[in-house]
Amino acid sequence: MRRIKITLAYDGGPYHGWQVQPGLPTIQGTLEQIVSGIEGRPVHVAGSGRTDAGVHAMAQVAAFTIGNPIPLRNLRRAVNRLLPPSIRVLSAEEVHATFHPRFDARRKIYEYRIVREEVCSPLEWPYVYHHPYPLAEDRMIELAPAFEGEHDFTAFAASDDRDEEGRSKVRTIYSSVLEAQAGRLTYRVCGSGFLKHMVRNMVGTLLEAGKGNVADLTALPARSGPTVPAKGLFLMGVEY
Amino acid sequence: MRRIKITLAYDGGPYHGWQVQPGLPTIQGTLEQIVSGIEGRPVHVAGSGRTDAGVHAMAQVAAFTIGNPIPLRNLRRAVNRLLPPSIRVLSAEEVHATFHPRFDARRKIYEYRIVREEVCSPLEWPYVYHHPYPLAEDRMIELAPAFEGEHDFTAFAASDDRDEEGRSKVRTIYSSVLEAQAGRLTYRVCGSGFLKHMVRNMVGTLLEAGKGNVADLTALPARSGPTVPAKGLFLMGVEY
Repeated sequence: MRRIKITLAYDGGPYHGWQVQPGLPTIQGTLEQIVSGIEGRPVHVAGSGRTDAGVHAMAQVAAFTIGNPIPLRNLRRAVNRLLPPSIRVLSAEEVHATFHPRFDARRKIYEYRIVREEVCSPLEWPYVYHHPYPLAEDRMIELAPAFEGEHDFTAFAASDDRDEEGRSKVRTIYSSVLEAQAGRLTYRVCGSGFLKHMVRNMVGTLLEAGKGNVADLTALPARSGPTVPAKGLFLMGVEY
Repeated sequence: MRRIKITLAYDGGPYHGWQVQPGLPTIQGTLEQIVSGIEGRPVHVAGSGRTDAGVHAMAQVAAFTIGNPIPLRNLRRAVNRLLPPSIRVLSAEEVHATFHPRFDARRKIYEYRIVREEVCSPLEWPYVYHHPYPLAEDRMIELAPAFEGEHDFTAFAASDDRDEEGRSKVRTIYSSVLEAQAGRLTYRVCGSGFLKHMVRNMVGTLLEAGKGNVADLTALPARSGPTVPAKGLFLMGVEY
């Protein structure tokens, strides 16, 4: 049997997130159907993590095990031919049988895109959060690195995730940077892992700070902002 | 009464082209419904020309006449608030009562985008023509300016447009340039006007030349290529 690691890009717009849900289009479900068809039996496709409904990926990582001896290049082509254009396999490689995209992941990089211009281009609209209202951008930029380091991010988890016991909510953020450029705010964060909605809640908190609603800048990470829309979020890469 | 000129951007994907068609979503139909609502009576919105189903615009120009004294800035905002995000009014200005976006247009600029990489990004897919197959790009680049000058473009019109009598099929092309860069081919053309499907047939002809199927490079403009997909085409601007 061969363990195959694939790197994927997708437009999350048409999907109900990564994870298989009966009767709903999901990234994992779409991939499993196609890989199972090639293999001729049900194949499980494991991902580096679940992306939520509407979240995009420039380089999600997944893996599956098959017996089919098809060369990697042909496998990638075959899968891409069967996938809708909104999901693309960028690369495929053979890895050790024990490789697991989630448990072996060391770092993940996310990006969140905000358009500040009064009018948002129709072509960008599905891939950004349009927020043309006043913000103290300098304050947000100054505050963003306050997330760096090892913290308990319980307050930044989705409510249905927050009360789950037994699993640590401590994560390490290696870098947390907000950039303002050409009418856009781009937030880039690299961390050991992320709880459900964590990046979107961190961005929501930075936005609250930009509105002047965060009094104590030294108190981060303490959540104060809402969950920003999924469509501005991109999984940019996973490091092993 | 006030004559209002607006500049529009739109994602042509969800629309059956510019022109009103009963029961189908069109750009003109969507605009007329909203402007008529603001004015409180039916208002005709004239465009610089019909874009086909699926063709995008970065700067289409349209105009309408209203009595409503609403300031231009508020008018633009009100229309944008009522429009779907796939259509945006970029600017609005008051012009002479006789201004007509089609009859007064002096030049139009179109762009056609081709992705040459083997895998096309899911985010680009709705806005490009993916053509990863071998092409003699140098030959196409060399050939592109052959369209420049005053020519009878009958052969490049859509078949349902070609036999229409009485109206001249002579157009002047001011510039016709193909650029290869970073895995993409971008064709930019500026002309006095364009027949139905004309740009897409010109690009199809350049592609045929790239495949080695155009014997006589000096014979252009003689059509030899198919109509390339609408989704790679952008109306970039209209000059008055």
